[in-house]
Amino acid sequence: MLFNKFSLEEIYQGRLETGDDLLEELTDFVQGKEIKAGKISAIGAVQKATISYYDQETKEYYSKELDESLEIINVEGNISLKDGEPIVHAHIALGDEDGNMYGGHLEEGTIIFACEFVIQEYEGETLERGLHQPTELPLWE
Amino acid sequence: MLFNKFSLEEIYQGRLETGDDLLEELTDFVQGKEIKAGKISAIGAVQKATISYYDQETKEYYSKELDESLEIINVEGNISLKDGEPIVHAHIALGDEDGNMYGGHLEEGTIIFACEFVIQEYEGETLERGLHQPTELPLWE
Amino acid sequence: MLFNKFSLEEIYQGRLETGDDLLEELTDFVQGKEIKAGKISAIGAVQKATISYYDQETKEYYSKELDESLEIINVEGNISLKDGEPIVHAHIALGDEDGNMYGGHLEEGTIIFACEFVIQEYEGETLERGLHQPTELPLWE
Repeated sequence: MLFNKFSLEEIYQGRLETGDDLLEELTDFVQGKEIKAGKISAIGAVQKATISYYDQETKEYYSKELDESLEIINVEGNISLKDGEPIVHAHIALGDEDGNMYGGHLEEGTIIFACEFVIQEYEGETLERGLHQPTELPLWE
Repeated sequence: MLFNKFSLEEIYQGRLETGDDLLEELTDFVQGKEIKAGKISAIGAVQKATISYYDQETKEYYSKELDESLEIINVEGNISLKDGEPIVHAHIALGDEDGNMYGGHLEEGTIIFACEFVIQEYEGETLERGLHQPTELPLWE
Repeated sequence: MLFNKFSLEEIYQGRLETGDDLLEELTDFVQGKEIKAGKISAIGAVQKATISYYDQETKEYYSKELDESLEIINVEGNISLKDGEPIVHAHIALGDEDGNMYGGHLEEGTIIFACEFVIQEYEGETLERGLHQPTELPLWE
């Protein structure tokens, strides 16, 4: 196990605009405010979504486009540094009109209908991502 | 994007009683304590649930009653003001005996078997809901 | 409703190692650091998972092993005392290669591929679990 200790800095609560790309907006926000560590939560609805699944054998992400209106049941994400820049790593759970759920790694191409978020900014020694050989993922090191 | 900055005030951790209506109890709690901004998380189980899906074309919520015992995989919600009063906006994810999941906008009619929650109260300029023309939803303005 | 008030103490953000048992590692962590109250969130992926569902009639947990690689869409959990020791109660939502989701009560036997967590430690009068007659669950009393 690898971890750092943090204290809570700012909390941002707000909403994105209809038509925004969820991952791009969150990334622009944390980069614009130079938030180097933190936690993201969100609920809302999307016009369409792109999620991905990491194949643990081939070590590749396979993405899937869900081309329909869906509720955002939740987004859970974190903020850390990669190549010196703040990045967002988030997973998303979605629900369709029958209440069936779909989820995966949040990718660009997830377009907002309405979205309410909380970003908690943490202060402390930042976690930086680098290539983790066993998984071939950019994990904290 | 629209957002306000907040600091953390109180944290409440506790449980609801068997037979409680989840949304009503959370709403009573935040109104009773005059919590005007914040974040809600919960896990547990329900005797039955009512979830809804917002149709982005017709601009109406369609609700669905799930008349069975289900695990609450998670509740993610926020607290803000509408018509001057604290209200809870939450989405819920549920799991059945086979592990299949169902989710949507949390509605009244979701009856608790057991439920453990965390409510984080935020201090700052409160977000107030008003009719957002493009979506016809009561969003922060 | 039963609740206590808390303030935020430490925040721990980090990752588990490939091959770790998710529930065991989180439990070891909170016991090692003597964290008596708090909130846990996580995302990542597992090599396999064990989830359970509490049957509200028979008052028994039925567990199910998901013997495949899955994304952790989210973990939501809390920390409190049982028999004087810190324990973790968490629910997990998982997604398969098609984006289908499965969820339940997190059990031992959920083996990490990669996992990023946030643990918020709370300071206050701790909640202790004891047998709750109506549900036959170890709830806060």
